[in-house]
Amino acid sequence: MLRTLAFDADDTLWHNETHYAEAQGAFRDLLRAYHDDAWIDARLHDTEMRNLRRYGYGIKGFTLSMIETALELTDHRLDGAGLRKVLAVGQAMLDKPVEPLPGVVEVLEALQAEFTLMVVTKGDLFDQEAKLAKSGLASQFERIEILSEKDEAAYAALLRRHRLAPGEFTMVGNSVKSDILPVLAVGARAIHIPYHLTWAHEVVAPPPDSAFPVLASIRELPALLAAW
Amino acid sequence: MLRTLAFDADDTLWHNETHYAEAQGAFRDLLRAYHDDAWIDARLHDTEMRNLRRYGYGIKGFTLSMIETALELTDHRLDGAGLRKVLAVGQAMLDKPVEPLPGVVEVLEALQAEFTLMVVTKGDLFDQEAKLAKSGLASQFERIEILSEKDEAAYAALLRRHRLAPGEFTMVGNSVKSDILPVLAVGARAIHIPYHLTWAHEVVAPPPDSAFPVLASIRELPALLAAW
Repeated sequence: MLRTLAFDADDTLWHNETHYAEAQGAFRDLLRAYHDDAWIDARLHDTEMRNLRRYGYGIKGFTLSMIETALELTDHRLDGAGLRKVLAVGQAMLDKPVEPLPGVVEVLEALQAEFTLMVVTKGDLFDQEAKLAKSGLASQFERIEILSEKDEAAYAALLRRHRLAPGEFTMVGNSVKSDILPVLAVGARAIHIPYHLTWAHEVVAPPPDSAFPVLASIRELPALLAAW
Repeated sequence: MLRTLAFDADDTLWHNETHYAEAQGAFRDLLRAYHDDAWIDARLHDTEMRNLRRYGYGIKGFTLSMIETALELTDHRLDGAGLRKVLAVGQAMLDKPVEPLPGVVEVLEALQAEFTLMVVTKGDLFDQEAKLAKSGLASQFERIEILSEKDEAAYAALLRRHRLAPGEFTMVGNSVKSDILPVLAVGARAIHIPYHLTWAHEVVAPPPDSAFPVLASIRELPALLAAW
Protein backbone atom coordinates (compact mmCIF):
# COMPACT_ATOMS: atom_id res chain seq x y z
CA MET A 1 0.00 0.00 0.00
CA LEU A 2 2.74 2.53 0.93
CA ARG A 3 3.82 2.97 -2.66
CA THR A 4 5.25 6.44 -2.50
CA LEU A 5 7.72 7.64 0.09
CA ALA A 6 8.25 11.39 -0.05
CA PHE A 7 11.08 13.24 1.64
CA ASP A 8 11.39 16.84 2.62
CA ALA A 9 14.80 18.21 1.53
CA ASP A 10 16.15 21.02 3.76
CA ASP A 11 17.20 19.62 7.17
CA THR A 12 15.86 16.19 6.23
CA LEU A 13 18.22 15.21 3.40
CA TRP A 14 20.89 17.87 4.01
CA HIS A 15 21.82 20.70 6.40
CA ASN A 16 20.03 23.98 5.81
CA GLU A 17 19.05 25.76 9.01
CA THR A 18 22.68 25.68 10.21
CA HIS A 19 23.59 27.80 7.15
CA TYR A 20 20.89 30.33 8.03
CA ALA A 21 22.11 30.38 11.65
CA GLU A 22 25.69 31.00 10.46
CA ALA A 23 24.53 33.79 8.15
CA GLN A 24 22.56 35.34 10.97
CA GLY A 25 25.71 35.22 13.12
CA ALA A 26 27.65 37.13 10.45
CA PHE A 27 24.78 39.61 10.21
CA ARG A 28 24.88 40.20 13.99
CA ASP A 29 28.64 40.78 13.86
CA LEU A 30 28.09 43.51 11.29
CA LEU A 31 25.49 45.34 13.36
CA ARG A 32 26.85 44.75 16.86
CA ALA A 33 28.15 48.35 17.05
CA TYR A 34 24.55 49.52 16.75
CA HIS A 35 22.38 47.01 18.67
CA ASP A 36 22.45 43.93 20.87
CA ASP A 37 22.07 40.46 19.39
CA ALA A 38 18.53 39.76 20.60
CA TRP A 39 17.23 43.00 19.12
CA ILE A 40 18.97 42.36 15.78
CA ASP A 41 17.51 38.83 15.62
CA ALA A 42 14.02 40.06 16.48
CA ARG A 43 14.05 42.84 13.87
CA LEU A 44 15.37 40.51 11.17
CA HIS A 45 12.65 37.99 11.96
CA ASP A 46 10.01 40.74 11.76
CA THR A 47 11.30 41.88 8.36
CA GLU A 48 11.32 38.29 7.08
CA MET A 49 7.74 37.72 8.20
CA ARG A 50 6.57 41.01 6.71
CA ASN A 51 8.23 40.15 3.39
CA LEU A 52 7.16 36.49 3.20
CA ARG A 53 4.04 37.43 1.24
CA ARG A 54 6.25 39.20 -1.33
CA TYR A 55 9.40 37.09 -1.43
CA GLY A 56 8.33 33.61 -0.40
CA TYR A 57 10.92 31.26 1.12
CA GLY A 58 14.57 31.07 0.21
CA ILE A 59 17.99 32.64 0.37
CA LYS A 60 17.35 35.50 -2.08
CA GLY A 61 14.39 36.79 -0.09
CA PHE A 62 16.38 36.28 3.14
CA THR A 63 19.24 38.37 1.72
CA LEU A 64 16.86 41.16 0.72
CA SER A 65 15.37 41.08 4.21
CA MET A 66 18.86 41.28 5.76
CA ILE A 67 19.62 44.38 3.64
CA GLU A 68 16.33 46.01 4.57
CA THR A 69 16.89 45.27 8.27
CA ALA A 70 20.48 46.54 8.15
CA LEU A 71 19.29 49.86 6.70
CA GLU A 72 16.50 50.15 9.27
CA LEU A 73 18.65 49.24 12.25
CA THR A 74 21.36 51.75 11.38
CA ASP A 75 19.03 54.54 10.34
CA HIS A 76 20.51 54.17 6.85
CA ARG A 77 24.01 54.79 8.21
CA LEU A 78 25.49 51.35 7.42
CA ASP A 79 27.92 52.15 4.62
CA GLY A 80 28.25 50.56 1.20
CA ALA A 81 31.07 48.30 2.33
CA GLY A 82 28.85 46.94 5.10
CA LEU A 83 26.02 46.31 2.65
CA ARG A 84 28.44 44.63 0.26
CA LYS A 85 29.18 42.23 3.15
CA VAL A 86 25.48 41.46 3.60
CA LEU A 87 25.22 40.65 -0.13
CA ALA A 88 28.31 38.44 0.21
CA VAL A 89 26.77 36.55 3.16
CA GLY A 90 23.78 35.66 0.93
CA GLN A 91 25.97 34.69 -2.00
CA ALA A 92 28.12 32.50 0.25
CA MET A 93 24.96 30.66 1.34
CA LEU A 94 24.05 30.01 -2.31
CA ASP A 95 27.57 28.78 -3.06
CA LYS A 96 27.74 26.30 -0.16
CA PRO A 97 28.28 22.66 -1.04
CA VAL A 98 25.31 20.42 -0.24
CA GLU A 99 26.22 17.37 1.78
CA PRO A 100 23.66 14.68 2.55
CA LEU A 101 23.01 14.15 6.27
CA PRO A 102 24.49 10.97 7.81
CA GLY A 103 22.67 7.84 6.66
CA VAL A 104 20.72 9.50 3.83
CA VAL A 105 22.60 7.92 0.90
CA GLU A 106 22.46 4.37 2.31
CA VAL A 107 18.82 4.59 3.38
CA LEU A 108 17.63 5.95 0.02
CA GLU A 109 19.50 3.17 -1.74
CA ALA A 110 17.99 0.54 0.54
CA LEU A 111 14.44 1.82 0.06
CA GLN A 112 14.59 2.33 -3.68
CA ALA A 113 13.66 -1.21 -4.62
CA GLU A 114 10.47 -1.15 -2.57
CA PHE A 115 9.15 2.41 -2.93
CA THR A 116 8.70 5.19 -5.42
CA LEU A 117 10.88 7.87 -3.88
CA MET A 118 9.89 11.50 -4.19
CA VAL A 119 11.19 14.83 -2.93
CA VAL A 120 8.55 17.27 -1.72
CA THR A 121 10.14 20.51 -0.69
CA LYS A 122 9.13 24.13 -0.46
CA GLY A 123 11.13 27.20 -1.28
CA ASP A 124 12.85 28.85 -4.15
CA LEU A 125 12.66 26.68 -7.30
CA PHE A 126 16.09 27.65 -8.58
CA ASP A 127 17.81 27.21 -5.17
CA GLN A 128 16.16 23.86 -4.51
CA GLU A 129 17.00 22.44 -7.95
CA ALA A 130 20.59 23.64 -7.55
CA LYS A 131 20.85 22.02 -4.11
CA LEU A 132 19.42 18.75 -5.37
CA ALA A 133 21.96 18.73 -8.20
CA LYS A 134 24.83 19.59 -5.84
CA SER A 135 23.75 16.92 -3.33
CA GLY A 136 24.27 14.12 -5.85
CA LEU A 137 20.93 12.65 -4.74
CA ALA A 138 18.72 13.75 -7.66
CA SER A 139 18.95 10.42 -9.48
CA GLN A 140 17.60 8.57 -6.42
CA PHE A 141 14.19 10.20 -6.84
CA GLU A 142 11.57 9.45 -9.43
CA ARG A 143 9.72 12.69 -8.81
CA ILE A 144 10.78 16.09 -7.57
CA GLU A 145 8.05 18.43 -6.35
CA ILE A 146 9.06 21.94 -5.37
CA LEU A 147 6.11 23.81 -3.90
CA SER A 148 5.69 27.40 -2.84
CA GLU A 149 3.85 26.27 0.30
CA LYS A 150 3.33 22.92 2.06
CA ASP A 151 -0.15 23.08 3.48
CA GLU A 152 -3.17 20.78 3.36
CA ALA A 153 -4.34 22.13 -0.03
CA ALA A 154 -0.88 21.67 -1.53
CA TYR A 155 -0.69 18.02 -0.39
CA ALA A 156 -4.22 17.31 -1.62
CA ALA A 157 -3.28 18.74 -5.06
CA LEU A 158 -0.07 16.70 -5.06
CA LEU A 159 -1.94 13.45 -4.43
CA ARG A 160 -4.45 14.28 -7.19
CA ARG A 161 -1.64 15.17 -9.62
CA HIS A 162 0.07 11.82 -9.03
CA ARG A 163 -3.21 9.89 -8.80
CA LEU A 164 -2.33 8.60 -5.35
CA ALA A 165 -4.79 7.62 -2.64
CA PRO A 166 -3.83 9.00 0.79
CA GLY A 167 -3.05 5.46 1.96
CA GLU A 168 -0.42 5.15 -0.76
CA PHE A 169 1.60 8.16 0.38
CA THR A 170 3.97 8.67 3.32
CA MET A 171 5.87 11.87 4.02
CA VAL A 172 9.16 12.02 5.92
CA GLY A 173 10.47 15.34 7.20
CA ASN A 174 11.78 17.52 9.98
CA SER A 175 9.00 20.11 10.18
CA VAL A 176 5.87 19.26 12.16
CA LYS A 177 4.17 22.26 10.58
CA SER A 178 5.02 21.52 6.92
CA ASP A 179 5.78 17.80 6.73
CA ILE A 180 3.55 16.20 9.36
CA LEU A 181 0.30 17.97 10.31
CA PRO A 182 -0.97 18.85 6.77
CA VAL A 183 -0.13 15.30 5.60
CA LEU A 184 -2.09 13.73 8.45
CA ALA A 185 -4.91 16.15 7.62
CA VAL A 186 -5.29 14.72 4.10
CA GLY A 187 -5.35 11.19 5.53
CA ALA A 188 -1.83 10.12 4.58
CA ARG A 189 0.96 9.03 6.91
CA ALA A 190 3.88 11.12 8.11
CA ILE A 191 7.12 10.38 9.93
CA HIS A 192 8.95 13.04 11.88
CA ILE A 193 12.76 13.18 11.96
CA PRO A 194 13.61 16.32 13.94
CA TYR A 195 16.65 18.42 13.09
CA HIS A 196 18.56 20.08 15.93
CA LEU A 197 17.50 23.56 14.73
CA THR A 198 14.06 24.72 13.61
CA TRP A 199 13.30 28.07 11.99
CA ALA A 200 11.03 30.09 14.32
CA HIS A 201 8.42 30.35 11.54
CA GLU A 202 8.12 26.54 11.40
CA VAL A 203 7.68 25.95 15.12
CA VAL A 204 4.20 24.70 16.09
CA ALA A 205 2.81 22.75 18.96
CA PRO A 206 1.19 19.62 17.52
CA PRO A 207 -2.44 19.28 18.60
CA PRO A 208 -2.78 16.92 21.60
CA ASP A 209 -4.74 14.35 19.60
CA SER A 210 -2.15 14.01 16.83
CA ALA A 211 0.04 10.94 16.73
CA PHE A 212 2.96 10.24 14.44
CA PRO A 213 6.22 8.35 14.74
CA VAL A 214 9.34 10.34 15.62
CA LEU A 215 12.74 8.96 14.65
CA ALA A 216 16.14 10.03 15.96
CA SER A 217 17.76 9.48 12.55
CA ILE A 218 16.85 8.53 9.00
CA ARG A 219 18.77 5.31 9.71
CA GLU A 220 15.78 4.10 11.74
CA LEU A 221 13.40 4.51 8.79
CA PRO A 222 13.77 1.11 7.06
CA ALA A 223 12.99 -0.78 10.28
CA LEU A 224 9.90 1.34 10.93
CA LEU A 225 8.60 0.80 7.39
CA ALA A 226 9.28 -2.92 7.63
CA ALA A 227 7.24 -3.05 10.84
CA TRP A 228 4.20 -1.34 9.19
CA MET B 1 -3.45 15.28 -32.58
CA LEU B 2 -2.65 18.74 -31.08
CA ARG B 3 -4.03 17.81 -27.70
CA THR B 4 -2.04 20.12 -25.50
CA LEU B 5 -1.59 23.81 -26.10
CA ALA B 6 1.01 25.34 -23.81
CA PHE B 7 1.47 29.05 -23.22
CA ASP B 8 4.45 30.95 -21.95
CA ALA B 9 3.35 33.47 -19.28
CA ASP B 10 5.54 36.61 -19.06
CA ASP B 11 4.99 38.80 -22.15
CA THR B 12 2.71 36.17 -23.69
CA LEU B 13 -0.22 36.20 -21.24
CA TRP B 14 0.64 39.46 -19.46
CA HIS B 15 3.11 42.35 -19.51
CA ASN B 16 6.44 41.67 -17.85
CA GLU B 17 9.40 43.16 -19.71
CA THR B 18 7.80 46.64 -19.53
CA HIS B 19 7.98 46.38 -15.72
CA TYR B 20 11.68 45.52 -15.90
CA ALA B 21 12.23 48.44 -18.31
CA GLU B 22 10.43 50.81 -15.90
CA ALA B 23 12.49 49.55 -12.97
CA GLN B 24 15.66 49.99 -14.97
CA GLY B 25 14.58 53.58 -15.69
CA ALA B 26 14.18 54.28 -11.97
CA PHE B 27 17.59 52.68 -11.36
CA ARG B 28 19.21 54.96 -13.97
CA ASP B 29 17.61 58.03 -12.36
CA LEU B 30 19.22 57.07 -9.07
CA LEU B 31 22.71 56.74 -10.52
CA ARG B 32 22.66 59.48 -13.14
CA ALA B 33 24.82 61.72 -10.94
CA TYR B 34 27.57 59.12 -11.24
CA HIS B 35 27.38 57.67 -14.77
CA ASP B 36 25.64 57.95 -18.12
CA ASP B 37 22.65 55.73 -18.95
CA ALA B 38 24.37 53.40 -21.40
CA TRP B 39 27.13 52.61 -18.92
CA ILE B 40 24.63 51.98 -16.10
CA ASP B 41 22.59 49.63 -18.34
CA ALA B 42 25.69 47.75 -19.46
CA ARG B 43 27.02 47.26 -15.92
CA LEU B 44 23.62 46.10 -14.64
CA HIS B 45 23.35 43.61 -17.47
CA ASP B 46 26.86 42.29 -16.67
CA THR B 47 25.96 41.85 -13.00
CA GLU B 48 22.72 40.05 -13.92
CA MET B 49 24.55 37.67 -16.25
CA ARG B 50 27.28 37.00 -13.70
CA ASN B 51 24.65 36.24 -11.03
CA LEU B 52 22.30 34.15 -13.18
CA ARG B 53 24.09 30.96 -12.15
CA ARG B 54 23.46 31.88 -8.49
CA TYR B 55 20.10 33.62 -8.54
CA GLY B 56 18.26 32.22 -11.58
CA TYR B 57 15.52 34.34 -13.17
CA GLY B 58 13.14 36.64 -11.38
CA ILE B 59 12.60 39.90 -9.58
CA LYS B 60 14.39 38.99 -6.33
CA GLY B 61 17.61 38.15 -8.14
CA PHE B 62 17.20 41.26 -10.31
CA THR B 63 16.85 43.41 -7.17
CA LEU B 64 19.99 41.89 -5.62
CA SER B 65 21.83 42.58 -8.89
CA MET B 66 20.63 46.20 -8.88
CA ILE B 67 21.96 46.63 -5.31
CA GLU B 68 25.30 45.08 -6.21
CA THR B 69 25.61 47.25 -9.33
CA ALA B 70 24.65 50.40 -7.41
CA LEU B 71 27.42 49.74 -4.88
CA GLU B 72 29.96 49.02 -7.61
CA LEU B 73 29.06 52.03 -9.75
CA THR B 74 29.30 54.48 -6.84
CA ASP B 75 32.40 52.97 -5.30
CA HIS B 76 30.20 52.14 -2.29
CA ARG B 77 29.25 55.79 -1.90
CA LEU B 78 25.53 55.44 -2.65
CA ASP B 79 23.96 56.08 0.73
CA GLY B 80 21.45 54.04 2.66
CA ALA B 81 18.51 56.12 1.48
CA GLY B 82 19.52 55.44 -2.14
CA LEU B 83 19.76 51.72 -1.46
CA ARG B 84 16.40 51.78 0.26
CA LYS B 85 15.03 53.16 -3.03
CA VAL B 86 16.53 50.27 -4.99
CA LEU B 87 14.85 47.82 -2.58
CA ALA B 88 11.59 49.70 -3.05
CA VAL B 89 11.86 49.49 -6.85
CA GLY B 90 12.06 45.70 -6.56
CA GLN B 91 9.18 45.52 -4.09
CA ALA B 92 7.02 47.72 -6.34
CA MET B 93 7.62 45.24 -9.19
CA LEU B 94 6.43 42.38 -6.98
CA ASP B 95 3.36 44.35 -5.93
CA LYS B 96 2.23 45.24 -9.48
CA PRO B 97 -1.18 44.04 -10.58
CA VAL B 98 -1.10 41.45 -13.35
CA GLU B 99 -3.33 42.28 -16.29
CA PRO B 100 -3.82 39.84 -19.14
CA LEU B 101 -2.70 41.16 -22.56
CA PRO B 102 -5.48 42.13 -24.99
CA GLY B 103 -7.31 39.10 -26.36
CA VAL B 104 -5.90 36.61 -23.86
CA VAL B 105 -9.06 36.00 -21.83
CA GLU B 106 -11.32 35.51 -24.88
CA VAL B 107 -8.86 33.30 -26.76
CA LEU B 108 -8.24 31.01 -23.78
CA GLU B 109 -11.97 30.65 -23.30
CA ALA B 110 -12.48 29.86 -26.98
CA LEU B 111 -9.75 27.21 -27.05
CA GLN B 112 -10.63 25.49 -23.81
CA ALA B 113 -13.18 23.13 -25.28
CA GLU B 114 -10.80 21.76 -27.86
CA PHE B 115 -7.44 21.66 -26.09
CA THR B 116 -5.80 20.84 -22.80
CA LEU B 117 -4.38 24.23 -21.86
CA MET B 118 -1.11 24.45 -19.98
CA VAL B 119 1.20 27.19 -18.75
CA VAL B 120 4.91 26.54 -19.22
CA THR B 121 6.94 29.36 -17.78
CA LYS B 122 10.37 29.83 -16.32
CA GLY B 123 11.46 31.92 -13.42
CA ASP B 124 10.92 32.24 -9.74
CA LEU B 125 8.31 29.73 -8.49
CA PHE B 126 6.83 32.03 -5.88
CA ASP B 127 6.66 35.06 -8.24
CA GLN B 128 5.12 33.08 -11.08
CA GLU B 129 2.48 31.45 -8.88
CA ALA B 130 1.61 34.85 -7.41
CA LYS B 131 1.31 36.38 -10.89
CA LEU B 132 -0.90 33.57 -12.11
CA ALA B 133 -3.16 34.02 -9.11
CA LYS B 134 -3.28 37.81 -9.57
CA SER B 135 -4.00 37.47 -13.31
CA GLY B 136 -7.26 35.65 -12.69
CA LEU B 137 -6.27 33.15 -15.41
CA ALA B 138 -5.18 30.22 -13.24
CA SER B 139 -8.47 28.35 -13.53
CA GLN B 140 -8.23 28.37 -17.35
CA PHE B 141 -5.27 25.99 -17.23
CA GLU B 142 -5.28 22.31 -16.46
CA ARG B 143 -1.56 22.20 -15.79
CA ILE B 144 0.93 24.77 -14.58
CA GLU B 145 4.61 24.04 -15.14
CA ILE B 146 7.13 26.46 -13.69
CA LEU B 147 10.63 25.52 -14.79
CA SER B 148 14.02 26.90 -13.81
CA GLU B 149 15.13 26.79 -17.46
CA LYS B 150 13.34 26.25 -20.79
CA ASP B 151 15.79 24.35 -22.95
CA GLU B 152 15.55 21.20 -25.05
CA ALA B 153 16.16 18.90 -22.05
CA ALA B 154 13.46 20.65 -20.02
CA TYR B 155 10.87 20.27 -22.80
CA ALA B 156 11.82 16.61 -23.35
CA ALA B 157 11.34 15.97 -19.60
CA LEU B 158 8.02 17.83 -19.67
CA LEU B 159 6.67 15.67 -22.51
CA ARG B 160 7.78 12.50 -20.70
CA ARG B 161 6.21 13.67 -17.44
CA HIS B 162 2.85 14.26 -19.13
CA ARG B 163 3.16 11.20 -21.39
CA LEU B 164 2.78 13.34 -24.51
CA ALA B 165 4.20 12.55 -27.94
CA PRO B 166 5.87 15.58 -29.58
CA GLY B 167 3.04 15.69 -32.15
CA GLU B 168 0.52 16.19 -29.34
CA PHE B 169 2.19 19.35 -27.98
CA THR B 170 2.23 22.94 -29.26
CA MET B 171 3.96 25.80 -27.49
CA VAL B 172 2.92 29.45 -27.83
CA GLY B 173 5.25 32.20 -26.64
CA ASN B 174 7.14 35.41 -27.20
CA SER B 175 10.72 34.16 -26.85
CA VAL B 176 12.35 32.50 -29.87
CA LYS B 177 15.10 31.28 -27.55
CA SER B 178 12.90 29.75 -24.82
CA ASP B 179 9.52 29.05 -26.43
CA ILE B 180 10.30 28.21 -30.06
CA LEU B 181 13.71 26.73 -30.87
CA PRO B 182 13.95 24.14 -28.05
CA VAL B 183 10.36 23.04 -28.77
CA LEU B 184 11.10 22.54 -32.47
CA ALA B 185 14.24 20.65 -31.42
CA VAL B 186 12.19 18.01 -29.55
CA GLY B 187 9.92 17.62 -32.59
CA ALA B 188 6.88 19.53 -31.31
CA ARG B 189 5.28 22.62 -32.83
CA ALA B 190 5.75 26.21 -31.71
CA ILE B 191 4.01 29.48 -32.51
CA HIS B 192 5.75 32.79 -32.00
CA ILE B 193 3.84 35.86 -30.77
CA PRO B 194 6.48 38.59 -30.37
CA TYR B 195 6.23 41.16 -27.60
CA HIS B 196 7.43 44.69 -28.31
CA LEU B 197 10.34 44.32 -25.87
CA THR B 198 12.72 41.39 -25.46
CA TRP B 199 15.23 40.99 -22.65
CA ALA B 200 18.76 41.10 -24.09
CA HIS B 201 19.48 37.66 -22.61
CA GLU B 202 16.63 36.14 -24.63
CA VAL B 203 17.58 37.59 -28.00
CA VAL B 204 18.77 34.98 -30.52
CA ALA B 205 18.91 34.84 -34.29
CA PRO B 206 16.85 31.82 -35.36
CA PRO B 207 18.88 29.44 -37.53
CA PRO B 208 18.17 30.05 -41.24
CA ASP B 209 16.57 26.62 -41.71
CA SER B 210 14.04 27.05 -38.91
CA ALA B 211 10.42 27.77 -39.78
CA PHE B 212 7.58 28.60 -37.43
CA PRO B 213 4.44 30.72 -37.62
CA VAL B 214 4.63 34.25 -36.27
CA LEU B 215 1.43 35.97 -35.16
CA ALA B 216 0.87 39.66 -34.51
CA SER B 217 -1.52 38.93 -31.63
CA ILE B 218 -2.92 36.01 -29.66
CA ARG B 219 -6.24 36.88 -31.35
CA GLU B 220 -4.93 35.23 -34.54
CA LEU B 221 -4.30 31.93 -32.74
CA PRO B 222 -7.71 30.20 -33.12
CA ALA B 223 -7.73 30.73 -36.90
CA LEU B 224 -4.20 29.32 -37.25
CA LEU B 225 -5.07 26.25 -35.17
CA ALA B 226 -8.28 25.72 -37.15
CA ALA B 227 -6.26 25.80 -40.39
CA TRP B 228 -3.84 23.09 -39.13
